[in-house]
Amino acid sequence: MLKIALAQINLLVGGINANQQKIIQTAEHARDELKADLVIFPELTITGYPPEDLLLRPDFIKHANQAVIDIAHAIQGINIIIGFPELDGDNLYNSAAVLRNGKILTQYRKNVLPNFGVFDEQRYFKSSKKTCLFTINDTSIAITICEDIWQKGLIEKNQYVGADLIVTLNASPFDAGKIHQREDIVCQQAKEANIPLVYVNAIGGQDELVFDGASFVVDPKGKVVFRAKEFEEQVSVVNFVNSLPETSTCSPLYNEISSEYKALVLGVKDYVFKNGFKGALLGLSGGIDSALVLAIAVDALGAGHVEAVLMPSKYTQNMSNEDAILEAEALGIKHHTIAIEPAVNAFTGMLSDVFAGTQRDTTEENIQARCRGVLLMAMSNKQGKLLLTTGNKSEMSVGYATLYGDMAGGFAPIKDVPKLLVYQLAEYRNTLSPVIPERVITRPPSAELAPDQVDEDSLPAYSVLDPILEMYIEQDKSAEDILAAGYQLKDINRAISLVDRNEYKRRQAPPGIKITSRAFGRDRRYPITSGYKGTINK
Amino acid sequence: MLKIALAQINLLVGGINANQQKIIQTAEHARDELKADLVIFPELTITGYPPEDLLLRPDFIKHANQAVIDIAHAIQGINIIIGFPELDGDNLYNSAAVLRNGKILTQYRKNVLPNFGVFDEQRYFKSSKKTCLFTINDTSIAITICEDIWQKGLIEKNQYVGADLIVTLNASPFDAGKIHQREDIVCQQAKEANIPLVYVNAIGGQDELVFDGASFVVDPKGKVVFRAKEFEEQVSVVNFVNSLPETSTCSPLYNEISSEYKALVLGVKDYVFKNGFKGALLGLSGGIDSALVLAIAVDALGAGHVEAVLMPSKYTQNMSNEDAILEAEALGIKHHTIAIEPAVNAFTGMLSDVFAGTQRDTTEENIQARCRGVLLMAMSNKQGKLLLTTGNKSEMSVGYATLYGDMAGGFAPIKDVPKLLVYQLAEYRNTLSPVIPERVITRPPSAELAPDQVDEDSLPAYSVLDPILEMYIEQDKSAEDILAAGYQLKDINRAISLVDRNEYKRRQAPPGIKITSRAFGRDRRYPITSGYKGTINK
Repeated sequence: MLKIALAQINLLVGGINANQQKIIQTAEHARDELKADLVIFPELTITGYPPEDLLLRPDFIKHANQAVIDIAHAIQGINIIIGFPELDGDNLYNSAAVLRNGKILTQYRKNVLPNFGVFDEQRYFKSSKKTCLFTINDTSIAITICEDIWQKGLIEKNQYVGADLIVTLNASPFDAGKIHQREDIVCQQAKEANIPLVYVNAIGGQDELVFDGASFVVDPKGKVVFRAKEFEEQVSVVNFVNSLPETSTCSPLYNEISSEYKALVLGVKDYVFKNGFKGALLGLSGGIDSALVLAIAVDALGAGHVEAVLMPSKYTQNMSNEDAILEAEALGIKHHTIAIEPAVNAFTGMLSDVFAGTQRDTTEENIQARCRGVLLMAMSNKQGKLLLTTGNKSEMSVGYATLYGDMAGGFAPIKDVPKLLVYQLAEYRNTLSPVIPERVITRPPSAELAPDQVDEDSLPAYSVLDPILEMYIEQDKSAEDILAAGYQLKDINRAISLVDRNEYKRRQAPPGIKITSRAFGRDRRYPITSGYKGTINK
Repeated sequence: MLKIALAQINLLVGGINANQQKIIQTAEHARDELKADLVIFPELTITGYPPEDLLLRPDFIKHANQAVIDIAHAIQGINIIIGFPELDGDNLYNSAAVLRNGKILTQYRKNVLPNFGVFDEQRYFKSSKKTCLFTINDTSIAITICEDIWQKGLIEKNQYVGADLIVTLNASPFDAGKIHQREDIVCQQAKEANIPLVYVNAIGGQDELVFDGASFVVDPKGKVVFRAKEFEEQVSVVNFVNSLPETSTCSPLYNEISSEYKALVLGVKDYVFKNGFKGALLGLSGGIDSALVLAIAVDALGAGHVEAVLMPSKYTQNMSNEDAILEAEALGIKHHTIAIEPAVNAFTGMLSDVFAGTQRDTTEENIQARCRGVLLMAMSNKQGKLLLTTGNKSEMSVGYATLYGDMAGGFAPIKDVPKLLVYQLAEYRNTLSPVIPERVITRPPSAELAPDQVDEDSLPAYSVLDPILEMYIEQDKSAEDILAAGYQLKDINRAISLVDRNEYKRRQAPPGIKITSRAFGRDRRYPITSGYKGTINK
């Protein structure tokens, strides 16, 4: 009998001292309460994931390597596998150390270093070709780290001959549907090799990423026999008898919409509190985007930590104010109303000379949005609360947002949520408790920056726009491909030309939570200065 | 006799059609006017460098590969070497094609793919281990691409046995002093291998990067026998007799300060015009930073394309306004004055209820800076002129700037210029013609956002701050290292803690021109949420 604990814990990137303490406490708990023989932590446990260019700092690497030794000294009577950036001479490896009896028994160096999407591991690490086997109670255990297990060659290469069990340390970020892909691949690997597999994932928000947990154990037939919760910390033990895992509790998986909502909530919570803010505030317009962000913020931080500001102008309809107040009251949060007219009028007067003889255009709309930005940032500065921006992915894609206006803020919770999904998430949230008035969901979306303005004056309908954007941005489809999929040339060219020319806005946007296969940010790196035109010229 | 043309041209990233046309015209010129047998272009000629995630788009790659074939068909009677992203099956290579008689004669695939600093080549490309030799008029020529030539192993591996000449295609970005490092390494390689070397570099600005040109030819003794101009397009021919280069014109190298200034001018010019702006505008405060940015902008764009706005407040000293006007007049640019008081007063009134009972703090300073941001962005929006921000690297490092205030703008020319270097560049510019009043250089720097405020109220003196920042940011030194270098603990901790906690501001800053060994932007990738503390706790 071998008792293996899966330590699905929330780490702080760069916070080596805090992580060290948490690792020791968790290992003690696994040893004393769970009676585990072995406890396995996520990838790069010591530093959190991804530490990015902190990995280039010699002081940071030295500290991380010392922490491994300190942990080995601090706790005995249990085997521990932790991830750390291992320095060997001039080479840095993404490694896992096995700690036993106050020493580093052995270590494994990650073989496959991802360098795509949000990952930059070849910027920092050397890869190794060596495998690593060690033994506990006659059970021979092989170690892998994250990307290793996604490689088809893993088993074919017979690298794990002699192992009774494979363990894998991970920091696998969430996107919609990825958990099924992840489990499918790991189960397939286990089945092909006829070997059980223990998969430990990180959990928690880190800037643009959310790690969703859902660590699991697979038997040699490729069946999941244990699964930890999604989006929560959990330290659980699974018993292995004759190197085979006993069936244990399998937490059910959330459906896609609820997992997306959970990811957004966890992402906001960890960004706000890990960065030491007292809470969050946002502008509440009566529109669907701010209504959803408000609900997410309250679910993440608690009503007492969230504050909203209504900032009507002469273009704001009464129903917008009414609905915004209903939202604030339904969630029990503090709210203020500050009309923006005095500032707008001041700027209009100040600019009247230089603007003499010009026509009204988006400049005047932007001034309104920027007056709101100034107000919100003033309140954020004065109170130490993080300003959340409320823009969605469709807007970020086509630049339907004002830089330093509604784009002002430290974090953009729904930046990777396309508009159609905003509606679905709002409806999902209302099934838990009614917090978003029905009218907010059904009325046509509007920026309310000009008389009787609606989004569809400037953009294709979202039912057309969103699929085009997904094909162009997430799937790298060409305009010709999208045309072949049945969309209109006019809509395609409009959408694509807007995406192409708004990279400069996205570059200055606050970070937001990745929930799709390709988010804006580290995940998508486009030049601003660019002669590329994705449109079709006819 | 072999006549080799070095085509140091300014390309447009992503602009395949424009680049194709320029390549053909340049090759025709080399053939017809220069009578060259061979013309060599910079790395990734077809796409410009770096195309970043455009390389993930199948339509883009297909277009780039077709362009190579089209160029081969379009021009004959000369050998051409161009760089392109070569697709072979599912693999993409950073390649150089040799075009002759309407066909691709052979191609070389880059062996060494940089994945550090600003470079992400392993995100896109596979590397190859193969070399490539081809022959023109009995001269056997080997091809390398950029990072290849920086590897010590190049010669030891005897990869170039049989070659009479090595050519290298480059897109090597500028930073201060790099040109000497670059020439030293290439000359050393030539000398060790006892072989001549033709080095062709790109020229032009691309977002954060400036390619400085200065292509050159080295003889087998490691002596530079030809050098093209720095920071300018140039297509020149060098004669090879018995595979040895004849001595030709060597353009002198600029000294460090003038090369930095030239880089800033080229970076601004290409950002503004390649992005299709009609010109640029900026806020002119009477301080040294905006004075320098104005001079750079006028030198880059011409006085007729630059406009300045003075935006005094009650904290602005008279001499600031006087000096700002002197600067504008010395450079002959259009300027306006708009006092910010009406907008500041409007916001103060609008916030009086929510701020009741609070103390004045940086919030009120930020409101002033943000009112200026709103004014400048309104003028930028109305006129289609790019707003330049005027913050320097010292400010960006410690966050001594207001997000959406003085940080508002599309491009930040001196973002990578530390404050002490700002002074040196100002003095250098005044040696060309007097454009910055002496008083602007000698008076203590101030943000003028509070009564009698000077920078040194909040920050260590720049003579102390700048070296600390360079050690911490560019050299990855620890606080202990900096202490050992003779700085005070108080100053070190103050500087480092500010750098650590202002990553969120930098993430939303506009791009600026890299001139140091590590700029903010693609070059330095830090987490925002971070438990790392570089300070010493005592």
